Amino acid sequence: MCAIKIPESHPRYESLKTRNKLVLGVKKGIVCLEGLIAHGRGEAYDYLLGEKTTEFAKDAEYAASALLLVSKNPVISVNGNVSALVPKEISALSEIIRCPVEVNLFNRTVKREKLIEKIFSGSNIERKKEERIPFLESKRAFVSKRLFVSDTVLVPLEDGDRTEALRKMGKNVISIDLNPLSRTSQTATVSIVDNITRAVPNLISFSNEMKNYKAEDLMEIFGNFDNKENLRKTINLIKEKI
Amino acid sequence: MCAIKIPESHPRYESLKTRNKLVLGVKKGIVCLEGLIAHGRGEAYDYLLGEKTTEFAKDAEYAASALLLVSKNPVISVNGNVSALVPKEISALSEIIRCPVEVNLFNRTVKREKLIEKIFSGSNIERKKEERIPFLESKRAFVSKRLFVSDTVLVPLEDGDRTEALRKMGKNVISIDLNPLSRTSQTATVSIVDNITRAVPNLISFSNEMKNYKAEDLMEIFGNFDNKENLRKTINLIKEKI
Repeated sequence: MCAIKIPESHPRYESLKTRNKLVLGVKKGIVCLEGLIAHGRGEAYDYLLGEKTTEFAKDAEYAASALLLVSKNPVISVNGNVSALVPKEISALSEIIRCPVEVNLFNRTVKREKLIEKIFSGSNIERKKEERIPFLESKRAFVSKRLFVSDTVLVPLEDGDRTEALRKMGKNVISIDLNPLSRTSQTATVSIVDNITRAVPNLISFSNEMKNYKAEDLMEIFGNFDNKENLRKTINLIKEKI
Repeated sequence: MCAIKIPESHPRYESLKTRNKLVLGVKKGIVCLEGLIAHGRGEAYDYLLGEKTTEFAKDAEYAASALLLVSKNPVISVNGNVSALVPKEISALSEIIRCPVEVNLFNRTVKREKLIEKIFSGSNIERKKEERIPFLESKRAFVSKRLFVSDTVLVPLEDGDRTEALRKMGKNVISIDLNPLSRTSQTATVSIVDNITRAVPNLISFSNEMKNYKAEDLMEIFGNFDNKENLRKTINLIKEKI
């Protein structure tokens, strides 16, 4: 295994620190090797976006915060990479939103699932997977009752199949995915095209700002957001940057 | 560690088979975890290029084959990912070109270097690193006399620093890098923007085709190739695809 030692002054410090967290996650058994490859794909798009939160991503994060707060039964669904990169931030967000966290792994092993659930043990975590998402073949279909009846699911770093299946169930899906062209981004209700290490802190700060807003005001913020248009602008931004 | 079992009929079979080779490479100690992330970055660009060799990549591969054949002292420099993905192909190419293979690792350990050298033990492999590339701080600067005096170096999956340093030494550098915007692609003499699993077989087939060509004909093929223009066309292609 290789380790990278990088001084804080390095121009790509943040990106390299993130990589180190994932490498450490692999050593702890939290992150899957496939997760490292997926992270690399994200890095390529982050590079094209200038490695910062775009104004369009900020708009999506603002709308997503309003949607999470106004939802009756929101749930946050996490995987290995999310757990390695922003565990405290996800716990903090789940407290503000008052919603459970549920672990759902693409390359699931019971051992890895238990390790990750331990990370979120201070949070309101859903463990019992008694229901099944229709239109989804894989074991990822097994979910808790809470997620099954939820109205909104925040799925950072989700795959397209599951996003589509959740949408088919009539749920609002908030995705965090650096590829604006992915099936996940193209299918979600609110598609946040941003690095998860920047997106989740932004969701925390917007949710804190809005947590005492009236439901009708939250609905208006969410209603004013046009996801298709926002994605189009992000794709155009990448075209310009290239 | 996670394994992916994929049927041949799967639309992304090639891409997933490649991932499996790298995951296996990690388990064998050949591939570095950082190498998986780097591969993911490549995957993102490959996706934007349609996961096939573009006509511009083919032109670069044709020119690169001519340049390798007409060079007096070409060398192939390989890293962990190259060794996991196309070991036999690199050996075959080094035989046609009649040039040595040298291992150079970004995250170097003696153990990993020895493991990789063993993979190429049937080839003309350079082990003694007695010279040092100027303008390069890292340990990657240490190279064999053969590479030090070479006129052309094929560097599949190289980093920008080393490509620049080799260019400053006046060498021709042939890169294989899926990101046409990378410093490596922008600095190389011939920049092949293609997946290494497709590029090396193409180099073998073109080199076989041209191996009896006269030096002047090879020089003409290489001379007719405009790398800057070729890169520009590839970047425009990505823009169109997005």
